[in-house]
Amino acid sequence: MRLVVVGGDAAGMTAASLVNRRRDDAEIVVIERGPYTSYSMCGIPYYVAGAIDEPEELVSRSPDEFRDTGMTVHMRTEAMAIDAQARTVAVCDLDRGVERTESYDALLCATGAHPMVPDLPGLAAHGYVVHTLDEGEQLRRALERRDDVRTVAIVGAGYIGLEIAEALIERGNAVHLIDRSPHVMRTLDEDMAQRLEEILTDFGVQLHLGEDLQEIRHDERRCRQVVTDAGCYEADAVVLAMGGKPNVGLAEAAGCAVGESGALVVDERMRTTVPGIWAAGDVVESVDLVADRRINVQLGTHANKQGKVAGIDIAAQPDDGDATFPGLVGTAVTRLCRWDVARTGLTEREATDAGIAYAAVSFTGTAVAGYMPDPGTVHVKMLAERDTGRVLGAQLLGTGNVAKRIDVAAVWCQLGVAVQDAQFLDLSYAPPFGGVWDLLLVAARKLTTELDLSPQL
Amino acid sequence: MRLVVVGGDAAGMTAASLVNRRRDDAEIVVIERGPYTSYSMCGIPYYVAGAIDEPEELVSRSPDEFRDTGMTVHMRTEAMAIDAQARTVAVCDLDRGVERTESYDALLCATGAHPMVPDLPGLAAHGYVVHTLDEGEQLRRALERRDDVRTVAIVGAGYIGLEIAEALIERGNAVHLIDRSPHVMRTLDEDMAQRLEEILTDFGVQLHLGEDLQEIRHDERRCRQVVTDAGCYEADAVVLAMGGKPNVGLAEAAGCAVGESGALVVDERMRTTVPGIWAAGDVVESVDLVADRRINVQLGTHANKQGKVAGIDIAAQPDDGDATFPGLVGTAVTRLCRWDVARTGLTEREATDAGIAYAAVSFTGTAVAGYMPDPGTVHVKMLAERDTGRVLGAQLLGTGNVAKRIDVAAVWCQLGVAVQDAQFLDLSYAPPFGGVWDLLLVAARKLTTELDLSPQL
Repeated sequence: MRLVVVGGDAAGMTAASLVNRRRDDAEIVVIERGPYTSYSMCGIPYYVAGAIDEPEELVSRSPDEFRDTGMTVHMRTEAMAIDAQARTVAVCDLDRGVERTESYDALLCATGAHPMVPDLPGLAAHGYVVHTLDEGEQLRRALERRDDVRTVAIVGAGYIGLEIAEALIERGNAVHLIDRSPHVMRTLDEDMAQRLEEILTDFGVQLHLGEDLQEIRHDERRCRQVVTDAGCYEADAVVLAMGGKPNVGLAEAAGCAVGESGALVVDERMRTTVPGIWAAGDVVESVDLVADRRINVQLGTHANKQGKVAGIDIAAQPDDGDATFPGLVGTAVTRLCRWDVARTGLTEREATDAGIAYAAVSFTGTAVAGYMPDPGTVHVKMLAERDTGRVLGAQLLGTGNVAKRIDVAAVWCQLGVAVQDAQFLDLSYAPPFGGVWDLLLVAARKLTTELDLSPQL
Repeated sequence: MRLVVVGGDAAGMTAASLVNRRRDDAEIVVIERGPYTSYSMCGIPYYVAGAIDEPEELVSRSPDEFRDTGMTVHMRTEAMAIDAQARTVAVCDLDRGVERTESYDALLCATGAHPMVPDLPGLAAHGYVVHTLDEGEQLRRALERRDDVRTVAIVGAGYIGLEIAEALIERGNAVHLIDRSPHVMRTLDEDMAQRLEEILTDFGVQLHLGEDLQEIRHDERRCRQVVTDAGCYEADAVVLAMGGKPNVGLAEAAGCAVGESGALVVDERMRTTVPGIWAAGDVVESVDLVADRRINVQLGTHANKQGKVAGIDIAAQPDDGDATFPGLVGTAVTRLCRWDVARTGLTEREATDAGIAYAAVSFTGTAVAGYMPDPGTVHVKMLAERDTGRVLGAQLLGTGNVAKRIDVAAVWCQLGVAVQDAQFLDLSYAPPFGGVWDLLLVAARKLTTELDLSPQL
């Protein structure tokens, strides 16, 4: 059985390793465009910040380590076209410019996503992106090499943009953060985003929200100014963090269906609509289990699980593998300017878009018991479905290492737990970790009352 | 409707406040033996440590604050006997020595527990206990007043004993910690307890485990030596932290059934076996939802929930209230010597005692992504039922503020989630909070393989 894996990061290498372990007869060929395999994309901002010294520290397994397990790994090689009938893929050695053909019994498309770069003069030449580790290296080298980089404009106020903004402020740069949305972090509701904007501003980030990037003014060497529809800002460098677009081109050209989310359609076993082709990771869409819609979420944790599921199915061919990826609930966390930001499930906007009637509660509590030294601050928000009480989503913004607390709400979202039941769960309590009523239990209790469900404790 | 609440701490005052809000016709009389209402017992070690200055900081609501809501609150007053037929309770004003009778329509027995003190010469006179806030005050005053208290012996290596041990070491005392069990923290499995013993020893606690207290040698003023069946230790003070025994006497004399756990039997609405008498808090037994047995767990978080349920049922009389307390799974956390200790569900010993066939996995991970600075250490243990994969329990011992992560496993235990399903849950991931596979997901994955369940990712 010959498996060709296109894309050597989380999803691809997880599947490749699993098939390699499960099938003695597997011949595995990995095609990777870049210079690294299996690294932590989420770690790039910390590498740019200098908290991590060398890019290799983000690599969990190198090409040679994979080769040692018996796989063939072609680095700096790009898959150009799939012939799904002939089950072949044309690949190109990027350094030597040589094309050749690889045959496959199974092909896994784990091509990930590419950063969105608007078609504006100067951007392609003078904008940095930080989507891959080598791009992160270029940015860090530029910051270290060029002492004249004082002010950096970042375009895009999502996770990566904000994490890079913090990293640059900590490096001593001035930062303009530009986004066309009226608020940072579109994955949060406005009220939570506004609090985060205050935190960012206090930290020194200059926010320019609701502004549309229009032009990069530059000389031969570098960026000089960034122009939006509302202002013109001096900037010695510009970083684009406008999100990623799934790399569907290769699979789409081979006939694989692309969903409304813009990502590849796959079934629960990570099969595309074309026989012999699987897909996993940032390139696919997944079921959002709360809203029952299909969305594209680019996150390593899903890529890993999906890679395993794809690997199990590929290894089990022609029988069905026994693993299915059930979907996700949009859990995401980060730490910004010493505040933890966490979300799961639906925001108010998303619930409205999904046509789900809901109630929301918000309140502010402490990270540890209120009488302890430095009790911290945690802003809590939770949504539940109006008729049933089913937990729809939660958001946390707090000091005191509280991000992982969102996991409890994530489990509630994924299992369909209702607030009136959730309020009785035996969550932990001790003064160094909170008040006698856990913050999520308080939210569940408030929602039970708000929705006039029973029992109202 | 006249409600008499015996015991003015978490369970009692929660119920009293709830009835007071729900019933305009309620006449509420609270009988409290001590000088404080509604305080955090769990905060006492932090007060003894000096992290909290004044005992009043642990009080969430004073007697006068309750009186302002219209209740009658009798402090330093003890309930002596209940006449369940006549629906009266004899109470005694402890300062004036005056007895009188209070009539009731409903009586809530929220009498809590008392510290176990073995019947050994000198102990009653020279041992400190820290079960109530005023007892905590006595210990702290003794430590502050008496400069000659250098070495303290603590008897009992459970949560309170260990928290006090840490507090005293931080105050500069030498500490002998004595327990008849071969390991600290009987709520953990041996392997986890052993790691904790190393941590305590490194912190400076002198452990004397598997030793039975036999004698306190003292002079007129204070303790001089503590003698066990294995040694004799110089000690200027002795603190007893041997656990609490439910104060069932009052209710038992009135005919209320006491269960095998030694605590009062109550139904889901917190009714005792005697009409007109409810009970809640440390004095009752609860259903352990994992082992389906009844246990007595003394923890403020249960007392609060049970107080609410009792209050709802009392307020709804003669109709049933709509709230039921479903039971608990034994979740408990603390922080000791900068390590978080967390557990939920059953240990191996408890699973064996309950006759449940199980598998257990243990491994050591990091609190944040391994490539981040100071990734920390987390020892993880999880148990699942052999045939079904149902999560039975989990234990965590780690640096990096990881205690609240046990809540996810607590939800799994309470809802009966199986490891093969748990491994697909959308738990949060970002480098400051862990690796791409959450530690509990790793545990679920390992157990799925160990139990030969499907799918094995």
